[in-house]
Amino acid sequence: MPVTDHVAPLTLEMVREAHARIRPYVNHTPVLTSETLDARSGASLFFKCENFQNVGAFKARGATNAVLALSDDEAARGVVTHSSGNHAAALARAAGIRGVPAHIVMPSNAPRVKIEAVRRYGGQVTLCEPTLEAREAAAAGIVAETGAAFVHPYDDPRVMAGQGTAALELLGEVPDLDVILCPVGGGGLLSGVATVARALSPAIRVVGIEPAEADDAARSFRAGRVIPLGPTTTIADGLRTSLSERTFAHIRRLVDDIRTVGEDAIVHAMRTQWEVLKIVVEPSGAVSYAPFVDDPRWLAGSRVGLIVSGGNIDLDALPWSIA
Amino acid sequence: MPVTDHVAPLTLEMVREAHARIRPYVNHTPVLTSETLDARSGASLFFKCENFQNVGAFKARGATNAVLALSDDEAARGVVTHSSGNHAAALARAAGIRGVPAHIVMPSNAPRVKIEAVRRYGGQVTLCEPTLEAREAAAAGIVAETGAAFVHPYDDPRVMAGQGTAALELLGEVPDLDVILCPVGGGGLLSGVATVARALSPAIRVVGIEPAEADDAARSFRAGRVIPLGPTTTIADGLRTSLSERTFAHIRRLVDDIRTVGEDAIVHAMRTQWEVLKIVVEPSGAVSYAPFVDDPRWLAGSRVGLIVSGGNIDLDALPWSIA
Repeated sequence: MPVTDHVAPLTLEMVREAHARIRPYVNHTPVLTSETLDARSGASLFFKCENFQNVGAFKARGATNAVLALSDDEAARGVVTHSSGNHAAALARAAGIRGVPAHIVMPSNAPRVKIEAVRRYGGQVTLCEPTLEAREAAAAGIVAETGAAFVHPYDDPRVMAGQGTAALELLGEVPDLDVILCPVGGGGLLSGVATVARALSPAIRVVGIEPAEADDAARSFRAGRVIPLGPTTTIADGLRTSLSERTFAHIRRLVDDIRTVGEDAIVHAMRTQWEVLKIVVEPSGAVSYAPFVDDPRWLAGSRVGLIVSGGNIDLDALPWSIA
Repeated sequence: MPVTDHVAPLTLEMVREAHARIRPYVNHTPVLTSETLDARSGASLFFKCENFQNVGAFKARGATNAVLALSDDEAARGVVTHSSGNHAAALARAAGIRGVPAHIVMPSNAPRVKIEAVRRYGGQVTLCEPTLEAREAAAAGIVAETGAAFVHPYDDPRVMAGQGTAALELLGEVPDLDVILCPVGGGGLLSGVATVARALSPAIRVVGIEPAEADDAARSFRAGRVIPLGPTTTIADGLRTSLSERTFAHIRRLVDDIRTVGEDAIVHAMRTQWEVLKIVVEPSGAVSYAPFVDDPRWLAGSRVGLIVSGGNIDLDALPWSIA
C-alpha cells in the first residue's frame, strides 16, 4: 500500500471552516465572463479572478487560514517559511493580521521587488544562499531559535483548506459547472479545489493544467506515484514545484485528468486574457485558459470554471515585448 | 438666459428605465477595492470597473439603451453614427442585439483593429475622408437614404441615461459614498453619473476629471458656457471631445468641480492600476485615479467611488515601454 493512502484527507468541512475564518481578511474575488470568449469556445466560461486576491494571488487564502488556525501560544512564537514567491508575501500579511512575527527566508538572488513586498507587509526577511539546502537550514535555525511555526506553501492541510475556499466561492455563485480547470504546481490549490468540487457536485470534472515544461503532476498522475520535477525554465514560474505526497494523494483520488500546455499557448492565453477580459494575469494564472489556444472548442457545450490563480508580473518585462 | 437652461433635464427615472431595458444585454461590472491603495490614500476607494463592460467600455450602456428605446418602426430602418472609438463598436453590438442594421462612418485612417471590431459586431462600415465635415456628410447621406436613426456618442438623452446606469449599480452596492470621481470627455458619462448621484445621495460630491491637455470641461465650468476643445494630443484619446450644450447644462447644474490632471499622472495612474488592481485600463479610464498620483491624500478619510471607464488599449504600444 503506497504511503499516499495514509494521508488524512481534506474534507469539505475543513474548507468551510477555513472560509469562515479567513472571510473578513481576504477578498471575495469576482467571477468574470466574456461573450467574446464564449463565442470562440462554444462554452460558457466563468473566470474566478484570484489575481484580484490580496497580495495578487490565491496564496493569501491558505496562508491566512494557517496563521489564524494557530493557538494563541503557537501564534505568539511567530511563523516561518522559505519562499521567493507569493506565499512569502501572503504569510507576512497574515502574520500582520494576527499581530505576530513572520520570518521569511529568501534566497539572496530573489528580485528586490519581492523582498520589498514581504517587508512592506511587515515580514522579517532572512537572506540565504540560493539553494534549497540553505533555505531549509535557515528556516530550521529560526524554528529552533524562536519556536515559530513552519507554514509550508502547499504541503499543509490548513493551507490546502484555505486554497479550497476559492472553489467554495466559485460554486456558490455558479453551482452548475460541468468542469473546473485549475493550474497545478505544488498541488495545494488543486487539492483544495477538487475536495470542494467533488463534495458539492459529484458529477463535475476537475482537470489540473500544468506546463508541459513542468509536467511532474501529469507524469505522477499516470504513474500512480510522485515523480519529482526536474530542472525547468517554464515561463509559469509559480508552477516550478513538485507535488508532495499529501497533495498527490488528493489529486490522485479526486482529479479526473491532468492536461499539459506548451509555453507558446501560455503566453497566448495570457495575452488573450489581458486583451479580452482586461485583467492582468501572470503566466501561471493563465495556464487554466491555455488549452483553449490550440483547441478552442475542446469543451464546447459545457459550463466551465477556470481558476485564474494570480496576477503578479513585471510590467517592464512582458513576454510579448521581449519576443 | 443661456441656451443651456432650455435643455430638458435627465432624471433618475430615465436612468432607472434605461437600466431595466439594458440589463439583460450588458455586464453588471464588479466594484474592486485595494487595501494597498486605501493605505496610500487614507481613503476607501471603490473602483467601478467599466473596462469589464461589453466592448471594453461604458459606451455599451448608452448605445444599447438608445437602440432598445427606438420604436419597432424606427429600429427597422437601422441606426447610424460616426465614430472611430468605443461608441462605434457599442452601437454595432446593440444593433445586432435588436437585429437591425448599424451604419458606422469611420475615417479612412482609423486603426484597422477598430474597423475590424465594428465589423465583428456586425456593423456596416462606411469609410470617409478623415475630417469632421466628411464624417457628418457621410452620416447625413446614410440617414437620407435609409431613414436610419442617428445616435450621437453623448449628445443624446437616451445615451446619457444609459451611461448613468453605471452609477446606479455603484451606489446600489456602495450607497454611502462621499465623492464620485468620473472622467469627462463629451460629458455623457458624467451627466448620467451626476444625475444619479445627486438624486440618490444629495450630499455626495461629484467631481469630473479631465486631462489638462484637454481641459474644455474645466474651462467651460468656470466660464459658465461651453468653450470648445482645441487641438489636443492627450494620451487619453477617449477624452479628446468637447462638451455639448446638453451635457454642459447637466454638468453645470449637478457637478461640484472639474479637476485636471497632467499626462504623466495619467500614465502613472494607469500603471498603478495595472500593477496593484491587476486590471487593464486605458489612459482615459485611468484619469479618475490620476489626481491621487501627485496628491495621494487629497480625499483622506472619505469613501470614494471612481469610474474606470474603459480598457481598450494596444498591448504592443504601452506608454511605459515607449517612454
